[in-house]
Amino acid sequence: MNSRKTEFLAFIGDLQNNICKALEDEDGKALFREDQWHRPGGGGGRTRILTEGKVFEKAGVNTSAVHGELPPSMQAYLKTNHQRFFACGISLVIHPFNPFVPTVHANYRYFELYDDSGDVVDLWFGGGADLTPYYLFDEDAVHFHSLHKSVCDRFSPELYSQLKRACDAYFFNHHRGEARGIGGLFFDRMNDADDRGFDVATALGDVFIPAYLPLVMQRKPTIFTDEQKRWQEIRRGRYVEFNLLHDKGTLFGLKTNGRVESILMSLPATVRWEYDHHPQPGSPEERLLNVLKAPVDWV
Amino acid sequence: MNSRKTEFLAFIGDLQNNICKALEDEDGKALFREDQWHRPGGGGGRTRILTEGKVFEKAGVNTSAVHGELPPSMQAYLKTNHQRFFACGISLVIHPFNPFVPTVHANYRYFELYDDSGDVVDLWFGGGADLTPYYLFDEDAVHFHSLHKSVCDRFSPELYSQLKRACDAYFFNHHRGEARGIGGLFFDRMNDADDRGFDVATALGDVFIPAYLPLVMQRKPTIFTDEQKRWQEIRRGRYVEFNLLHDKGTLFGLKTNGRVESILMSLPATVRWEYDHHPQPGSPEERLLNVLKAPVDWV
Repeated sequence: MNSRKTEFLAFIGDLQNNICKALEDEDGKALFREDQWHRPGGGGGRTRILTEGKVFEKAGVNTSAVHGELPPSMQAYLKTNHQRFFACGISLVIHPFNPFVPTVHANYRYFELYDDSGDVVDLWFGGGADLTPYYLFDEDAVHFHSLHKSVCDRFSPELYSQLKRACDAYFFNHHRGEARGIGGLFFDRMNDADDRGFDVATALGDVFIPAYLPLVMQRKPTIFTDEQKRWQEIRRGRYVEFNLLHDKGTLFGLKTNGRVESILMSLPATVRWEYDHHPQPGSPEERLLNVLKAPVDWV
Repeated sequence: MNSRKTEFLAFIGDLQNNICKALEDEDGKALFREDQWHRPGGGGGRTRILTEGKVFEKAGVNTSAVHGELPPSMQAYLKTNHQRFFACGISLVIHPFNPFVPTVHANYRYFELYDDSGDVVDLWFGGGADLTPYYLFDEDAVHFHSLHKSVCDRFSPELYSQLKRACDAYFFNHHRGEARGIGGLFFDRMNDADDRGFDVATALGDVFIPAYLPLVMQRKPTIFTDEQKRWQEIRRGRYVEFNLLHDKGTLFGLKTNGRVESILMSLPATVRWEYDHHPQPGSPEERLLNVLKAPVDWV
């Protein structure tokens, strides 16, 4: 096993442990359960799920490391003739109970392609993190974006705005004409020349806890009404629509016979679809919708 | 306007009225509201939605009649070089509140393709109806299938089994290895030689009320627990997964800029995703799952 693979596997294992520990501490009631699974084609993963906590209604923090032969659909998607691959990563989605605490998603991954003799012919990193609030506090959006920007700025002055724009473009519910949330970062196929891919992915992974947990601490005591919970559940419906209609990771996972329960852990526990729902003019709910229709530069 | 078009438009308008009236009478509390909408490319529809009734949590009974130019993706799907089209139909999804009352879906539609001089070069009917129970009563499944079979048998002895198999194949959640419900009928591209397409579609449309309403009457007084309601909401999650991941009508509607709220009226009001949920061995919930994994011949 080459050293890059070893190093990134160790990184995602540690990050999974650290994030789960931090979330359990913050929740104060529920603990993660772990399911280890094996992929028939090679490899497997550790799915960790926390449900019905005091703070978190449903949270999944998964790692996986799989290898084998790419199906033709995946070869076409990656525009490669090579078939042998290795992929590993960490993927998390956290759905808090309180509608004033935002939902968050993050994912950092590493990919290798091999020729017939088993030599690495291509490798890259991908990932990102994005925030989905139900009530928008500008200072929360600024905090989340600022911490991610400070990591990007260590590498190049353009990196943050490139990855921020890619995130706004990717997490977009085209059929609704609105973003899933208030963005973050998204990148794919970042190569590892001068260790850049590894360094960017791991530095961003390490900023997840300080970027997200302070928002949880700040907002979790907020009193909310049944109507505000209902609004959160309606917006969660848009989250489901994005993940099942547009998210490439979800669709490829399901089409390539990935473990369904690990893939669909991203879906919130309780969700609501109301016909033709429109928030009151001038309300905080309407303001959120307006921001989602035209992504904002937060920093 | 040719007579086939006129006749089928009149049929779906009457059927929409009759079904809405029957459901309102059965509900006894809520009424349908109607939204008329216009399609920029030509035509429009009448969307009728009933919500938060005594019996029905959410019900949509829609008609539409649209015309114009097919987008290239739709031409490819229909395997045609012709671009001008007319389509009309009725589409309904009914989600009852009580988990012992099954959800139902039905759709009957008519399609015409034109050459450049405006002459009809192809026309066909499509549609079907299928039942999605949360608790399985064999006699309900037999009633629903028997009434649909009795209509099919008027046309040919093989028709029912052909359309029943097509329904089992179509309404299948491939990623879960289970059917959406206990089936019914499904057909597409049925031509109108000897008036067959029209006669089949209208006769099946007319059997909807007697096939479904007796099940509502029979089951709606059943007392249920919070756990049984929860099971219904978990199964509704599978309904959402089918409609957003696999249903061709939903995906094409969204990709061709159809009216989002009319298309997604099919999604239930309250839905739940629990990680890796498994019913108790030997329970009615487990029996339903076993039936969905291997479709049954009900008549």
